[in-house]
Amino acid sequence: MPPFVEDDIAKILESYRQSIDNIDASLIHMLAERFKITQKIGEYKAKNDLPPADKHREIHQIERLRELSLNAKLDPDFSEKFLQFIIKEVIRHHEYIRSTASQ
Amino acid sequence: MPPFVEDDIAKILESYRQSIDNIDASLIHMLAERFKITQKIGEYKAKNDLPPADKHREIHQIERLRELSLNAKLDPDFSEKFLQFIIKEVIRHHEYIRSTASQ
Repeated sequence: MPPFVEDDIAKILESYRQSIDNIDASLIHMLAERFKITQKIGEYKAKNDLPPADKHREIHQIERLRELSLNAKLDPDFSEKFLQFIIKEVIRHHEYIRSTASQ
Repeated sequence: MPPFVEDDIAKILESYRQSIDNIDASLIHMLAERFKITQKIGEYKAKNDLPPADKHREIHQIERLRELSLNAKLDPDFSEKFLQFIIKEVIRHHEYIRSTASQ
């Protein structure tokens, strides 16, 4: 491949990657805020002796995110997997809060 | 538990959950934008016969997100798992684009 074509490819990919990096920084900061809230929920649930998981709420969240995803042209199956990935982490935190609160 | 205490708990949880729902809507829309860009990258890589994965770039992304996470008080291990979860999906898309482009 001639060097000038390689330069063009590098520039184009770099431009896309800058946008990805900006989006990733936003995602990380939104997730940090999300875990700050779920931390409070976890402490509140432990104090009031409520179970860490709530299947009814989870079903509602999945339905809502699937619908939002369709409108945003994002694969709803991916969004569901994404939410379950997050919820798994949240429940791990809640169980930890519960175990330390009951000691 | 007396009914008024149950009402208070429901109200407090509902308020937290509204914030979670707002954050989740933002996350879904940011992810939709992210996949729009990685779709373009995938098409560009397929056209220029570049491999779907880029380990060097991935290592740089992980380092950057771990640092951002520390500043945002988010568990860096979680952020790394999160990025790998997203990248796995992106590579799946890129391989699909590559396979359909070469047909």
